[in-house]
Amino acid sequence: MTGGQIRAAGRAEPEEAVLFSPLARSLAATTPFVGPEAIERETGVRFRARLGANESVFGPSPAVLEAVAEAAARSWAYGDPEQHDLKVALARHLGLAPANVTVGEGIDGLFGHLVHLATQPGDAVLTSFGAYPTFNYHVAGHGAALHTVPYRDDREDIDALLERARALKPKLLYFANPDNPTGSWHEAAAVERLVRETPAETILVLDEAYSDLAPASSLPPTSLLRPNLLRFRTFSKAYGMAGVRVGYAFGESEAVRQFDKVRNHFGVSRMAQAGAVAALADRAFLEDAIARIVAARDRLSAIARDAGLRPLSSATNFVAIDCGRDGAFAKAVLDGVIRRGVFIRKPAVPPLDRLIRVTVGREEELALFAEVLGETLRELG
Amino acid sequence: MTGGQIRAAGRAEPEEAVLFSPLARSLAATTPFVGPEAIERETGVRFRARLGANESVFGPSPAVLEAVAEAAARSWAYGDPEQHDLKVALARHLGLAPANVTVGEGIDGLFGHLVHLATQPGDAVLTSFGAYPTFNYHVAGHGAALHTVPYRDDREDIDALLERARALKPKLLYFANPDNPTGSWHEAAAVERLVRETPAETILVLDEAYSDLAPASSLPPTSLLRPNLLRFRTFSKAYGMAGVRVGYAFGESEAVRQFDKVRNHFGVSRMAQAGAVAALADRAFLEDAIARIVAARDRLSAIARDAGLRPLSSATNFVAIDCGRDGAFAKAVLDGVIRRGVFIRKPAVPPLDRLIRVTVGREEELALFAEVLGETLRELG
Repeated sequence: MTGGQIRAAGRAEPEEAVLFSPLARSLAATTPFVGPEAIERETGVRFRARLGANESVFGPSPAVLEAVAEAAARSWAYGDPEQHDLKVALARHLGLAPANVTVGEGIDGLFGHLVHLATQPGDAVLTSFGAYPTFNYHVAGHGAALHTVPYRDDREDIDALLERARALKPKLLYFANPDNPTGSWHEAAAVERLVRETPAETILVLDEAYSDLAPASSLPPTSLLRPNLLRFRTFSKAYGMAGVRVGYAFGESEAVRQFDKVRNHFGVSRMAQAGAVAALADRAFLEDAIARIVAARDRLSAIARDAGLRPLSSATNFVAIDCGRDGAFAKAVLDGVIRRGVFIRKPAVPPLDRLIRVTVGREEELALFAEVLGETLRELG
Repeated sequence: MTGGQIRAAGRAEPEEAVLFSPLARSLAATTPFVGPEAIERETGVRFRARLGANESVFGPSPAVLEAVAEAAARSWAYGDPEQHDLKVALARHLGLAPANVTVGEGIDGLFGHLVHLATQPGDAVLTSFGAYPTFNYHVAGHGAALHTVPYRDDREDIDALLERARALKPKLLYFANPDNPTGSWHEAAAVERLVRETPAETILVLDEAYSDLAPASSLPPTSLLRPNLLRFRTFSKAYGMAGVRVGYAFGESEAVRQFDKVRNHFGVSRMAQAGAVAALADRAFLEDAIARIVAARDRLSAIARDAGLRPLSSATNFVAIDCGRDGAFAKAVLDGVIRRGVFIRKPAVPPLDRLIRVTVGREEELALFAEVLGETLRELG
């Protein structure tokens, strides 16, 4: 055991030395979203339906699989670190220039870079209480100070966010439209007011992960660019490519260019780049997937109502279902559904914690959810 | 143009506001390694051989492609954020526990996280002058102060690194074994001395990207663990999976656990995780690839000698070739080879800048390199 010999070889015990930064030492090792695989390993439950991670069972497109297979065979070579072809395709898709687009390992990866670029330890960041945990994880990871305003009627509260932002002048203001975990949305005019009234010192982080599934009336035009606005979209939701890992941000080129100072240049794989290009080109597949998701969303809402629960209106690929009582009751519903083999999730903090969050699926998966939800509610009385 | 209207809608010009952190504003947007695709786009040259990025034309294994295709079809779902199966396979491969291993979007991605975890702005980091640029890029990206010691006889200078480390007590000490860009290596006993004598306050970043291609005598046992040692390996080199994006670090669990505080949990794609598991299982393919790489390395060295140049001994999948004169001459050689359609690279800083760096390839690619190298040298006289 060379390791043991070396360790015993005489100098101060290394455990006494201070390794890693004070910030790093203060952080908890954590996973913002525990995966269904981990739940299966821990509980022994074998999930029969995976309706908890807001993925799309309807994707990816066969054209994506073809492009990915072709790229896989050439994956002895690094992907293009400038992501040229994908940026050109995205720019065309958005009606912008390639310099207005940056691509990363999912929106999550881009959020990590953005917090890195925009904040110093102690800087203020503003979001809604109960909004996207992975954004908060990166804020904590960079030692910035997270401030929150409450949701109002299960929607992000633009007035309250702006009021707090005017006082706080945060470095970042996070806003998701449509929203996760509620599925709610604001109309474009309201979002444009948020853009307009966000303090000039604050970067508005407009998370549009679910934009493909939202009413057109809710989306400001892609031409809405400002120095302090970055908009984030992904191939993980409507395109059904969550496991491929590709998201992007767009905005004014000077803001977008900042990512080139800290990003992992080869981080978006050759397969991801080729797959995303193919996905953008297969408009028919996307439209069909969206239609299926919207139909499944209606069906899921009906299932909730039939069970005596209240589904929230959704502009996403999931439905937040109000269990009608407190967080403990909703947690019991969640646990019962999970124990019966259907993976779903729920918000953790009040008042959203009375909701469960169920991703759409195929008819057989939704029927299974209906069945186990019914059993669970009967059990809970 | 909604964007224009909104911008004109009356408040201080946003350009006046200070966005992004002082550190971010001080950094240059850059690509540590300009890709061959970018060179093709800029020069109009169409590369006939890609021998510049230390990839392996011999991979990936057919078993990897099969696993990737299977994972692609299931890529509507996020990959396991705990990377359980891959960590278990790596732990078995290394003779360690899964808690000793963390997986990331290539070693580059892990380096970004490590610098984030280990340094505060202004903290000292030590490396060799001319060593891996992407590590330096991340050091700059976090505002740490990079200190260097010169190479000595085209190898990293362990004595000089240790002497400087004792004085400087850097947060990180970067050391690659085998080394890039020289291809040189140290024997295990020397590396173990470096491990032993690295100050207890300093994390030794042991980059073993090329370890699969190195003599066994150069590698300390994987059981060599210390609180301040992290070792980095990859599927990008011998396994031929550069474009897939998967690298890993191993070390004492307490050091490895730190990555769980800042990493991008879904960053390693479902295909990458499945592909890497399959790659580890296909030992025969790896051994065959290594044999081919070693043979091609010998052939490449012979080509250099035949051209009147001096190939450095290499324990990697590339050969650094001493062009025998100054950096300007080596740059002219590089340019001539590139202009003739063979992508190679060269170190940027003296005294290594008199080298060109050529990755191994198939016989036809090496023959093409021999041909264009000869033409270039004749042209340069």
